[in-house]
Amino acid sequence: MEITIIMFEDYETLDVFGPVEIFGRLVDRYTLKFYSLAGGIVTNRHGVHIVTEKLESLRNKPEILLIPGGLGTRLEVENPQLINKIKELALQSNYVLTVCTGSALLAKSGLLDGKLATSNKRAFTWVCSQNTNVNWDKKARWVVDGKYYTSSGVSAGMDMTLGFIADRHGEDLAKKVAWEIEYHWIEDKDCDSFSEKEYKDI
Amino acid sequence: MEITIIMFEDYETLDVFGPVEIFGRLVDRYTLKFYSLAGGIVTNRHGVHIVTEKLESLRNKPEILLIPGGLGTRLEVENPQLINKIKELALQSNYVLTVCTGSALLAKSGLLDGKLATSNKRAFTWVCSQNTNVNWDKKARWVVDGKYYTSSGVSAGMDMTLGFIADRHGEDLAKKVAWEIEYHWIEDKDCDSFSEKEYKDI
Repeated sequence: MEITIIMFEDYETLDVFGPVEIFGRLVDRYTLKFYSLAGGIVTNRHGVHIVTEKLESLRNKPEILLIPGGLGTRLEVENPQLINKIKELALQSNYVLTVCTGSALLAKSGLLDGKLATSNKRAFTWVCSQNTNVNWDKKARWVVDGKYYTSSGVSAGMDMTLGFIADRHGEDLAKKVAWEIEYHWIEDKDCDSFSEKEYKDI
Repeated sequence: MEITIIMFEDYETLDVFGPVEIFGRLVDRYTLKFYSLAGGIVTNRHGVHIVTEKLESLRNKPEILLIPGGLGTRLEVENPQLINKIKELALQSNYVLTVCTGSALLAKSGLLDGKLATSNKRAFTWVCSQNTNVNWDKKARWVVDGKYYTSSGVSAGMDMTLGFIADRHGEDLAKKVAWEIEYHWIEDKDCDSFSEKEYKDI
């Protein structure tokens, strides 16, 4: 299955490349493709310059859509061209995965209305304010509602991706990938230990 | 401080972007720059096309050198041009950090001779065979020997980077960054739970 990754200026580095590392390990099953509205090089504040293709050049319907978060989402929620494109592609996709504040972009499209979803715990109020018709879950590490997978902040995207692999191909394969990358997978999607934790508590 | 990241074809995605996410959070302290021998776009099997500058264009001595691993290292250990460049830059740097099989490249330069170091536990035999004059530590999550930081596989690079932050700026800052990215930092550098674990054990 092809994973269509929606890139925009000032995406969060690990929101993208955590899931990419995990899907990328399963070369027999997944292919990763990077797209953006304008195509070409997309950049973020960490200095990561990624080559993308134009979303318009996408010929087939996406099988899996991956939407990262990052500070760029603060601008992109006000970009109807991107939100409309996300809506169009998400409706066609078999699955839609968002990481961190990527769920704000999907929520803005209206497709999460009445559905359970989560997001970054440090940007939660802002994300919720983008669409109050979503049933925002502040406790979850990640949430599955039908074809929509939404994760909490940054590294939670890796846990969600392993959860997605487990749901599709069994828990053994997810554990094998986690083992290969020496990653301690947080398997409990319903409990994010960061949901209530303030920095002063740690 | 500027972090000089050495890129080559078929680097491991998370070896690079885990540390980048962490250093990138500390914009007041660190700047990230991507370099390769030839410059231009560097690619890996996950389909990540990164824009790099030519190593020759590096004008000042590097402050921190970051060397990722990945399957590409199997070829690059036999590339004297890259190994010599790594040696030259590592000698000038204040600190050198390697992730996963990146330590094989550094070991090949001879700079780890007589020093403690570690690497990916699944490629350990191959890494050790690159230079038997290194004191390879199979138990560690990451190892510090003077200015050299070497980590175990893939996601261990994030733990090492947080350890590096803790060593330079105090544990509080490292914990704050881990909290911001909702990452469960494995703080114990001396014990990698993956060191003896086989896939059948999990």
